[in-house]
Amino acid sequence: MLDRSVKRELAAIVGSEYVLDDTEARLTHSYDATPMYQAMPDGVIFPGNAEEVRAAMKVLSRHRIPVVGRGSGSNLSAGTVPVEGGVVMVLTRMNHLLEIDEENLTATFQPGLITKSLHEAVEARNLFYPPDPGSMVISTLGGNIAECAGGLRGLKYGTTKDYVIGLEAVLPSGDTLRTGGKLTKDVAGYDLTKLLVGSEGTLAIITEATVKLLPYPESKQVMIAYYPDMYDAARSVSRIIASRIIPSTLEFMDNATIRVVENFARIGLPTEMEAILLIEQDGPASIVERDVERMAAICREEKAADVIVADSTERGEELMAARRSALSALARLRPTTILEDATVPRSQIAPMVEQINRIADKYRLDICTFGHAGDGNLHPTCMTDARDREEIERVEQAFNEIFAAALDLGGTITGEHGVGLAKAPYLEWKVGKTGIEVMKGIKRAFDPDNLMNPGKLFAKETRRRVVVDSCAQLNTTQQT
Amino acid sequence: MLDRSVKRELAAIVGSEYVLDDTEARLTHSYDATPMYQAMPDGVIFPGNAEEVRAAMKVLSRHRIPVVGRGSGSNLSAGTVPVEGGVVMVLTRMNHLLEIDEENLTATFQPGLITKSLHEAVEARNLFYPPDPGSMVISTLGGNIAECAGGLRGLKYGTTKDYVIGLEAVLPSGDTLRTGGKLTKDVAGYDLTKLLVGSEGTLAIITEATVKLLPYPESKQVMIAYYPDMYDAARSVSRIIASRIIPSTLEFMDNATIRVVENFARIGLPTEMEAILLIEQDGPASIVERDVERMAAICREEKAADVIVADSTERGEELMAARRSALSALARLRPTTILEDATVPRSQIAPMVEQINRIADKYRLDICTFGHAGDGNLHPTCMTDARDREEIERVEQAFNEIFAAALDLGGTITGEHGVGLAKAPYLEWKVGKTGIEVMKGIKRAFDPDNLMNPGKLFAKETRRRVVVDSCAQLNTTQQT
Repeated sequence: MLDRSVKRELAAIVGSEYVLDDTEARLTHSYDATPMYQAMPDGVIFPGNAEEVRAAMKVLSRHRIPVVGRGSGSNLSAGTVPVEGGVVMVLTRMNHLLEIDEENLTATFQPGLITKSLHEAVEARNLFYPPDPGSMVISTLGGNIAECAGGLRGLKYGTTKDYVIGLEAVLPSGDTLRTGGKLTKDVAGYDLTKLLVGSEGTLAIITEATVKLLPYPESKQVMIAYYPDMYDAARSVSRIIASRIIPSTLEFMDNATIRVVENFARIGLPTEMEAILLIEQDGPASIVERDVERMAAICREEKAADVIVADSTERGEELMAARRSALSALARLRPTTILEDATVPRSQIAPMVEQINRIADKYRLDICTFGHAGDGNLHPTCMTDARDREEIERVEQAFNEIFAAALDLGGTITGEHGVGLAKAPYLEWKVGKTGIEVMKGIKRAFDPDNLMNPGKLFAKETRRRVVVDSCAQLNTTQQT
Repeated sequence: MLDRSVKRELAAIVGSEYVLDDTEARLTHSYDATPMYQAMPDGVIFPGNAEEVRAAMKVLSRHRIPVVGRGSGSNLSAGTVPVEGGVVMVLTRMNHLLEIDEENLTATFQPGLITKSLHEAVEARNLFYPPDPGSMVISTLGGNIAECAGGLRGLKYGTTKDYVIGLEAVLPSGDTLRTGGKLTKDVAGYDLTKLLVGSEGTLAIITEATVKLLPYPESKQVMIAYYPDMYDAARSVSRIIASRIIPSTLEFMDNATIRVVENFARIGLPTEMEAILLIEQDGPASIVERDVERMAAICREEKAADVIVADSTERGEELMAARRSALSALARLRPTTILEDATVPRSQIAPMVEQINRIADKYRLDICTFGHAGDGNLHPTCMTDARDREEIERVEQAFNEIFAAALDLGGTITGEHGVGLAKAPYLEWKVGKTGIEVMKGIKRAFDPDNLMNPGKLFAKETRRRVVVDSCAQLNTTQQT
């Protein structure tokens, strides 16, 4: 619970209905979309504008109270779990789309705007904001920026960081930082815009953002290829790219995922196949048609059992929706679903899937793998049960090995979910001691008192992923 | 001159022929492509590989000797002038193209590789590295990365930072930092890759880089439009973008530039016109043709006196070469040419050019303006004479006002040249006191003893650009 005088100070800023510290409010903000992580905040605040964020930050800083910025909490790295207590600052009231500038091809908005709302608003003007994280129907753009959200279109269009060109952010001191602008080019000092994107709320609270937009693609076409052999699917991916075609989406599903998705969506996927590639190309109609023909030919040459080009936009959307349903479909199977995002160079997809399968067998676990093959961004997903400690120990060991395998293949521990709490023990594996030290120094430059989302990114201990302790902590915290 | 024991230590690492401190070596590394800035280093070192960089950095750090990393010195912000003495570390020996990976569409190289060499090597494989700074025939990629070089293709393709996805860098401590990799997606901690791009040698020495490549465009077409009225040209730019066409290049030249370029290149530009737009589109032939037709129609509707579509690749290249020759052409006119890069949102090009012309009149100066209209990245270029102190005072005041005008229009003090020494007094205008403080903190995280390219980015005094003092410093330094 919040100290009474702190609560009064905060209420004077945002109004008493927007500062909560009852058990219900604290409990509903004690977890996010990441399974098995939970910790109770002392209170929750819902500022209504940037001025309120600034004033509240000054109060919280003065009292040395940690601040966890949060949108919809749809992240998958326990990035918004308030492990060191303090205040969860929910930015969903600040959800205005401030401007779509058709001359400069930019959109400016507050952090609480829902990703899908921005998509709809810009698409209504024949413009395009490509980042499309799986959670886009509920996720906020502030959350997308904090996590550098990816999605299905990363191969051709990049991720959130490739679109954010201007930010307004509030530092723990309450000072406002303005970076970039409606500018294609800006090299005035260090690129603080790109640094804030993906900083996971550990540096500042973002209060406004400007993103660049593209013209909406003139047309789209979806195709799907079924493979009895995973290596043929992987080889198709490599050959498509090597033939200088960059499709807008190039998704992969392994056999386990195919079976689950088909059982869920009933759209006629062949459940005996080892792998599916789901490919979308966009652009001018004649070029899309040409690219799809070429890609279909490559898939057939690489021994796809069948290649089907969607004969209508509706069928294309149905197939893409099936892919997007993979997580929901998998989540139905067992009580706990752990979705990871080990990422490798595109050329290493087949070896990586093979490693994942080997590791799953070794630890007797159900791991389905799907993901963005064009990006090398795979989502090995484990269906398990958080209450079964013995099994969870094996899950943990398996993911340890999966991350190590990804790094051995030139990859990274996280392609699009972020480090948060879940990956913190592994960050040093990727960036080294030197990287950790530099990052800690950057953190100090913004947040000398370590108040911004403390406990994230930097683990007290590298390597062991202490999921069991995290559950124990939940119990302890709830009892206090 | 270098201390004898330091020189011995460095010679033991790189070989005595690669550590120089004679007057000639020091003098030739006392300046770069920026007029009116010069300062003598104590010595010059040419490491041959990353290991030598590491070892040399350790020695220099131990002795608290400043280090200025340098490629060809083609920057335009006095970024490689060793204002605080120390050692200039020239990386031109480390010029190997290490790999072109056709499966992952990446290139990996050492920092001393010439930009144009990379272009040629990847284009031979039908691949494309878009950043094309004006100096690309002589500039090194390490320099491009340090400055975040732009070029003519920024509108459609972005700048250097949009392509660098992995770096190896040596910190002043001699420790090696490895960031990113052959990865389209990587969110493992703060994005140190993008932070190092454009950090102007103030954080670390880059010893290896990986960039992403694109398929080479299937075809290109160039068109040119002549305008009796600048506002009609600016309106054409806005209407082209608003009609959802993103050309690969969209260049602007004002009347003063047209006259000088025509006088230099003799390609038949109409010298009585107020403005020229030079436009290139690339992509599949049918789409290029369609886009060029549409853009030509827009230009005609917006009262272009003439619109000419280049009837051959050669004619197109000739026109683009003429634009690229603008700086050389202008440089012939008077002893000193100051090329600036005030940048505004694309929609503000006409007001910005009008401001520049007003300011040039006010201070009785010759300022030609050309640049990347699609980016809002203008190059107001002043022909002057560094020896005429009274005139140089006026030049300085005029650029003060030009930067202020750019900021008033939502722009920035530098779009692609960097801050270096030349723009340091203006950085606070763009990023504010808060931005400066955060950037200084970042600098400390990498370089606690302020040894990496000291004196750059952060000015002792904001606002006044002391070019005259800089000349005085040169004289003093040379006498010592």
